[in-house]
Amino acid sequence: MTAERARLIIDVPAWVGEAAVAGRAFRDDQDKMALVIRLAGENVARGAGGPFGAAVFEIGSGKVVAAGVNRVVEASNCVLHAEMVALMFAQQRVGSFTLRSPGRPAHELVTSCEPCAMCLGATLWSGVTRLVIGAERDDAMAVGFEEGPVFSESYAYIAARGVETVRGVRREEAAALLRAYRDAGGIVYNPDARLPPRAR
Amino acid sequence: MTAERARLIIDVPAWVGEAAVAGRAFRDDQDKMALVIRLAGENVARGAGGPFGAAVFEIGSGKVVAAGVNRVVEASNCVLHAEMVALMFAQQRVGSFTLRSPGRPAHELVTSCEPCAMCLGATLWSGVTRLVIGAERDDAMAVGFEEGPVFSESYAYIAARGVETVRGVRREEAAALLRAYRDAGGIVYNPDARLPPRAR
Repeated sequence: MTAERARLIIDVPAWVGEAAVAGRAFRDDQDKMALVIRLAGENVARGAGGPFGAAVFEIGSGKVVAAGVNRVVEASNCVLHAEMVALMFAQQRVGSFTLRSPGRPAHELVTSCEPCAMCLGATLWSGVTRLVIGAERDDAMAVGFEEGPVFSESYAYIAARGVETVRGVRREEAAALLRAYRDAGGIVYNPDARLPPRAR
Repeated sequence: MTAERARLIIDVPAWVGEAAVAGRAFRDDQDKMALVIRLAGENVARGAGGPFGAAVFEIGSGKVVAAGVNRVVEASNCVLHAEMVALMFAQQRVGSFTLRSPGRPAHELVTSCEPCAMCLGATLWSGVTRLVIGAERDDAMAVGFEEGPVFSESYAYIAARGVETVRGVRREEAAALLRAYRDAGGIVYNPDARLPPRAR
């Protein structure tokens, strides 16, 4: 970087779009969670990133606005958790820094695993009014993933600011995916991770 | 988004690069904080975003690795707090999802204002080992900015995982900038913000 503009490009692979074509309607929490778990599994199967998937939906119509998968290792970017990718692309699609706009549908974030501290903060900033969680924090920590400073007070805090949290949707299915990732020797990309050279 | 790859582009304006040319060395915390406060002020003066600036430095050499300013409203992206921009560009420059790598310098994040919940989470994931704060959470909340679910336990949590926090560096100067932004009618872009049409 000298005096020129710096640029960072974030890509979501085409297969994510194929699975979650914007505007396709999903029926209920089970149906939406099935999608994001499928994205998480596909992400691992294709060697594209960690075992996490997320998507933003319109509440009511059930239409998917944007989907995301974990891109941390692939993109050398610790911010690119599945939830962050889904939220950023949803806002790009809607054309606003908040998904809460008068006269527009409310939105929800559906994630295959409980958000880490960063993603929970972004969930609040994003303007979604509902958060639907598959695997729990304990499921992620059990296979080695850090989740950061999230406490029960954190959920009370976002609830007081208009974000309802729903837990336990297809939890076992989502947690099984995390365990399968670990058992297959998947990279647990915490800050102190020491990756094999090929993964760099 | 149909079945094609989705892409999101994050730009840091050229003037940020001019102020914080990568590799330029800064002497101490005061000197580094002066830079990020200057970036925050410049961001407001140019109408480019909120009154926040941040940068990642190599510890020891004091070399700046990447700098960021708030781009939330401008980019329609709630994730683009100054800290997130600085961390993502620093990792792009280093070519890794973590700034902690054996045999490489350690890194620190210097921010004109205490990180929100999202940015504090990202601080931990980023691999920086030191966090230097100007204005405090209370200074930001006093002018209307939400900071999210951050508690004293949050700092204990990241300290236990190798991130030292230093507070109060040029706090008054940084807080005065926040107040000036509010007094000038600057946009406080919380999730429920109702922006005037021109700002959309």
